[in-house]
Amino acid sequence: MVTSSVVDTYPLSSYTFGTKEPKMEKDTSVADRLARMKVNYMKEGMRTSVEGILLVQEHNHPHILLLQIGNTFCKLPGGRLKPGENEIEGLKRKLTSKLGATVPALVPDWQIGECVATWWRPNFETIMYPYCPPHITKPKECKKLYVVHLSEREYFAVPKNLKLLAVPLFELYDNVQRYGPVISTIPQQLSRFQFNMITK
Amino acid sequence: MVTSSVVDTYPLSSYTFGTKEPKMEKDTSVADRLARMKVNYMKEGMRTSVEGILLVQEHNHPHILLLQIGNTFCKLPGGRLKPGENEIEGLKRKLTSKLGATVPALVPDWQIGECVATWWRPNFETIMYPYCPPHITKPKECKKLYVVHLSEREYFAVPKNLKLLAVPLFELYDNVQRYGPVISTIPQQLSRFQFNMITK
Repeated sequence: MVTSSVVDTYPLSSYTFGTKEPKMEKDTSVADRLARMKVNYMKEGMRTSVEGILLVQEHNHPHILLLQIGNTFCKLPGGRLKPGENEIEGLKRKLTSKLGATVPALVPDWQIGECVATWWRPNFETIMYPYCPPHITKPKECKKLYVVHLSEREYFAVPKNLKLLAVPLFELYDNVQRYGPVISTIPQQLSRFQFNMITK
Repeated sequence: MVTSSVVDTYPLSSYTFGTKEPKMEKDTSVADRLARMKVNYMKEGMRTSVEGILLVQEHNHPHILLLQIGNTFCKLPGGRLKPGENEIEGLKRKLTSKLGATVPALVPDWQIGECVATWWRPNFETIMYPYCPPHITKPKECKKLYVVHLSEREYFAVPKNLKLLAVPLFELYDNVQRYGPVISTIPQQLSRFQFNMITK
């Protein structure tokens, strides 16, 4: 794990993007998703999920890599940990599943940095909070966002049913309508970092 | 400086609050404030300001100490650095000016923790961003927010023209109308910390 308040950020053009087989969503509706969450909670207790903030730069401004499903919904690469799984190892596993090549030698050596945010889901509902609300003793999910330090060159394999977008911080900021409460406040959570924009 | 992702948080009732002489605002209007900022910028260049996030707990939920001016406007304790002044030392000076007793022996031994956010003012206007916007080469102000680790007992002297409020995170969250963009996203910036709620 890398702990640094400086994040080296390379141009989007220094990365290579390919495709791989589709990774279908496990649920076809929000209701299905919450129902499956409930079933899993009964079996395994609180869900812990981990997501990665992968940074690149264009025009000297930081951009974040988001996976777009369909025409509107965007999410960070990541997912649910197995019961007892280490957060850092689990995030690496999920990043490889979402963005890694099928050839192991081409999979990035993921460098996981600091946790920048934690969100809590108090009930089997879509709403989450950046704290565990008072009187909630059994939250249903804890989601953690980590900075991922990319090397100068990487190969990403994007599942064919998804699009990978590089979205500038100024587009995310104050745009809860488009990106939701978690992704739209990433600019504030990253504001304490110093971005070392490498332009060559 | 203290670097830790664990913040010990003591009950509000363990602190003592007194009063001291009023600390009047230097400006009586937003227009005056921006005009003074412009004059200072001409003399000294970009303004750097530092503010402290002082945490207490009530009902097992973190609260932040805010200074209220008049009936509505709230601000964090802090202020502008002198040209060349160290951020940590400057924040201690400002915290003492805003909240320290006039008797030096009673002034808290301020323990400044991590920087949790940086905000940029691109122009002589009220709007700030959690990044330096593209094409802005000469921002007019950089404001940094630091966690301040309080001891179990402290004495705070509040200027008579101000009120000191302990505001819960759940009240700040998603409340940009009341607290503005900087203070209302403090819950997200603190979400990565683990609060060790000390209840005795």
